Amino acid sequence: MEEQLQLQVIGVLHGDITSREDAPKNYDESERTGTLEIFPKYQDGLDGIVAGQTIVVLFWLHKSDRNTLKVHPRGDKSRELRGVFSTRSPARPNPVAISELKVIAADANHLEVSGLDILDGTPIIDIKKKIS
Amino acid sequence: MEEQLQLQVIGVLHGDITSREDAPKNYDESERTGTLEIFPKYQDGLDGIVAGQTIVVLFWLHKSDRNTLKVHPRGDKSRELRGVFSTRSPARPNPVAISELKVIAADANHLEVSGLDILDGTPIIDIKKKIS
Repeated sequence: MEEQLQLQVIGVLHGDITSREDAPKNYDESERTGTLEIFPKYQDGLDGIVAGQTIVVLFWLHKSDRNTLKVHPRGDKSRELRGVFSTRSPARPNPVAISELKVIAADANHLEVSGLDILDGTPIIDIKKKIS
Repeated sequence: MEEQLQLQVIGVLHGDITSREDAPKNYDESERTGTLEIFPKYQDGLDGIVAGQTIVVLFWLHKSDRNTLKVHPRGDKSRELRGVFSTRSPARPNPVAISELKVIAADANHLEVSGLDILDGTPIIDIKKKIS
């Protein structure tokens, strides 16, 4: 099997969370809003997404540590170290975050969304319909 | 922004689904079982995952078409073409699938799971705790 795979960056998040200290720990705890800018090359893929929907967005957490396999859950050092795959820690070999976001408005290549817990400037790698 | 990002393959799925025609359309419709083999280099990340849990697994759908931006939902040609980002189609620029799977058994670097809708031999790129 090939050992490395290439992701394409399809867009970028514009938001007001600029430090990890300021970020909510998970999307289910956030009312923060921002804009998903999808690069023109990929904008045909947005057809069918409308305001009011909840979408699943995959981000690439480009500031994360990719060499850590054990973490304290939620960064709480009083808790025992656990494998990253048993947590939602951003530190992991492939730092892909899954966010469920509500679409507030949509144009040809932008989606205004709420529910963000992700840093401004984070690359977007995929968007999917939520399974209801 | 860098336009391409490198994924690391952390493991591979062993299952009995060998053709797309045989695959359930979504994991919420499947009782199929199989084994996630995590490569030894990454096995410390599994610490804390136990039988009975539901986990979120990200697969890289290596047989998918990465150049398609519009599809007929669920492959039904009587339905209008829609943007891939408004669907769960495997065809998309970054063919990452999200599966929620139940852990039946776990050892140092294998997880036996149920709920699969993914082809045998598919690369695994991440495992996360399910947000309850």
